[in-house]
Amino acid sequence: MTDSSQRLAELRSGIDELDAQLIDILAKRSALTSKVGEIKAETGMPVYVPEREVALIDKLRAQAIQAGISPDLAEDLMRRIMRDSYHTQNNRYQGVNPKTGNVVVIGGRGALGRVFVSLFERSDYDVDVIEKDDWQSGHAERVLANAALVVVAVPITLTETVISQLTALPEECVLADITSIKSKPLKAMLAAHSGPVVGLHPMFGPDAPGMIKQVVVVCHGRAPDAYQWLIEQMRIWGATIHESSAEEHDQAMAYIQVMRHFNTFVYGAHLKGENPDLDTLTVFSSPIYRLELAMVGRLFAQAPELYADIIFNNPDNVALLRRFHERFGVALDILERGDKKAFIKQFLEIGGWFGDYAKMCLVDSKQLLLKADDGQMLRK
Amino acid sequence: MTDSSQRLAELRSGIDELDAQLIDILAKRSALTSKVGEIKAETGMPVYVPEREVALIDKLRAQAIQAGISPDLAEDLMRRIMRDSYHTQNNRYQGVNPKTGNVVVIGGRGALGRVFVSLFERSDYDVDVIEKDDWQSGHAERVLANAALVVVAVPITLTETVISQLTALPEECVLADITSIKSKPLKAMLAAHSGPVVGLHPMFGPDAPGMIKQVVVVCHGRAPDAYQWLIEQMRIWGATIHESSAEEHDQAMAYIQVMRHFNTFVYGAHLKGENPDLDTLTVFSSPIYRLELAMVGRLFAQAPELYADIIFNNPDNVALLRRFHERFGVALDILERGDKKAFIKQFLEIGGWFGDYAKMCLVDSKQLLLKADDGQMLRK
Repeated sequence: MTDSSQRLAELRSGIDELDAQLIDILAKRSALTSKVGEIKAETGMPVYVPEREVALIDKLRAQAIQAGISPDLAEDLMRRIMRDSYHTQNNRYQGVNPKTGNVVVIGGRGALGRVFVSLFERSDYDVDVIEKDDWQSGHAERVLANAALVVVAVPITLTETVISQLTALPEECVLADITSIKSKPLKAMLAAHSGPVVGLHPMFGPDAPGMIKQVVVVCHGRAPDAYQWLIEQMRIWGATIHESSAEEHDQAMAYIQVMRHFNTFVYGAHLKGENPDLDTLTVFSSPIYRLELAMVGRLFAQAPELYADIIFNNPDNVALLRRFHERFGVALDILERGDKKAFIKQFLEIGGWFGDYAKMCLVDSKQLLLKADDGQMLRK
Repeated sequence: MTDSSQRLAELRSGIDELDAQLIDILAKRSALTSKVGEIKAETGMPVYVPEREVALIDKLRAQAIQAGISPDLAEDLMRRIMRDSYHTQNNRYQGVNPKTGNVVVIGGRGALGRVFVSLFERSDYDVDVIEKDDWQSGHAERVLANAALVVVAVPITLTETVISQLTALPEECVLADITSIKSKPLKAMLAAHSGPVVGLHPMFGPDAPGMIKQVVVVCHGRAPDAYQWLIEQMRIWGATIHESSAEEHDQAMAYIQVMRHFNTFVYGAHLKGENPDLDTLTVFSSPIYRLELAMVGRLFAQAPELYADIIFNNPDNVALLRRFHERFGVALDILERGDKKAFIKQFLEIGGWFGDYAKMCLVDSKQLLLKADDGQMLRK
């Protein structure tokens, strides 16, 4: 063994020793945060307290600087550790109103329905689930007759049909839905049920391991006092509540979801049509392009019906997309003329419209792209 | 103080104590990896050894499982720690050929040029920089007369003009460029210089803190034996080398860069035209939409000239973008007809074209979106 390879071996065994200590600290920390979780569940304290998180991170950054290591490193590590402790160590939550009576989740075995069922159960509510077959067997009718809260969590195409059947709920029962559009379901709920009604849109997919740090949009329907407890319950689960009218919500969704999904769909169709070699493309891609390609690819690993429902749901979408198509044509004409000046002028005008947000996007996405690099993600 | 708040305070002080230990371990680890970096620089061992990284991660995951904590948590933390040690603790690299003579970087004060200057200097090369003013002062002529390697790192619009002036290099001098297109610069270099010529495309932006884990595309020009040392040097800096013809490279770039940048440009123009409230949009966005919006916003925080150059560079791009525009129109017609069946059929066909890559994208981007969530990134 040469001198330098011996020194290297010694250094590496020292590093391995420190890594083992790191695992040990993580295990001990996890045991302590579990206990914190238990106390919070008993006393009904919120799981996610933004101020406590900020204070903890600030303190850690200061310690890192003092120890001569990167404060960004310390912060990134701590945020990752916190995610874990939020999601794996909160098996129970305080129930705000567990004695209210039965919570019925229609579609409670579906991807997002299951998240709600689990959250209610872990907060001491009695939960019933209604699935397709339960309507004929009489099970649905039985549990609905006792319901204190009914949550409609069925696919978007079925939402209105299912709601139209909920005409015999107890007068005091709260009726809610979690569809990603809000105007139509809210109207349908108000028509079917004369008691309290509220439209919810949890702004996260079933991938999310819970409701912590997630936004839930609340569109009030009728008798908000009767479902105030439900909103409180979601806050305890860690959600940020954003109140909105159903119309404002649906309009924002058209920009956000429909534009992106449709454009991504066409981009996929374009790639298939041009038929480049995907291996070559990913080899030639830097992290940002791999990420963008992955955003296209991921769409097609999912159920087409879901996206068809979102895109075809609203006839206004066609007009919005037509305007995008026209703008694409105008930009193409600029390109075909070779008019760089016009391109740059428009570019700067758009930048002005984005304002400071553009810079923020650049900074934030830079951090995220570095993280994508860590794991050598998104390479084929 | 109530009993539970006392218990909570005790637990938190225990957590704080563990966090301080964590910082301590990081500082110790950083000291050891610095020493490893020094030995590697002395002996010329590569900085990034994929096998050692895999082995280390595997071992750590096993330890995590045994300690009852999440192996994914352990892996994510270690990858983040490794990024830090790669980039902050490699101040020096072994030089493969530092006695070769002067390395001249034309445009060496620019964003990417600076990265190369720094890497060469930290590997014991004598480096000269040529900037705009140096042509008139005679400085350029002087340093070029002694050059063993000339790297052209000027903006894409100037590349060919600058290259056309390099007709008096020493016969043995290696001429290289790092432009993001390859056919035209390579042709220009072969015409201007009769000695060794190579086209390089470092597949990363100036954001990247170095060359570790990055791809560099190499397009051979003339006399590869004479610049083999340069390729070895980039490997020591941590790069993955991908050899390609200039034509293959440029075609892949058209799909990857031009399509995405142009589409993003139009999307920005569309948003400005529709003028939705950005605050509202980001509030209503789940992590994936915030990320997509950030990918649009970040474009407009950058220099329009760069993107104008990339997009206007190749007349073939117009035809490619026209075909995208047509496909968008066809998809719009399907939407206008309300023909969900046709949409779903096409969706599945595209999914078939993507094959397993789509699933991989879904898994990888899921991890990345969780990371975006950790830091509450991309919220306005």
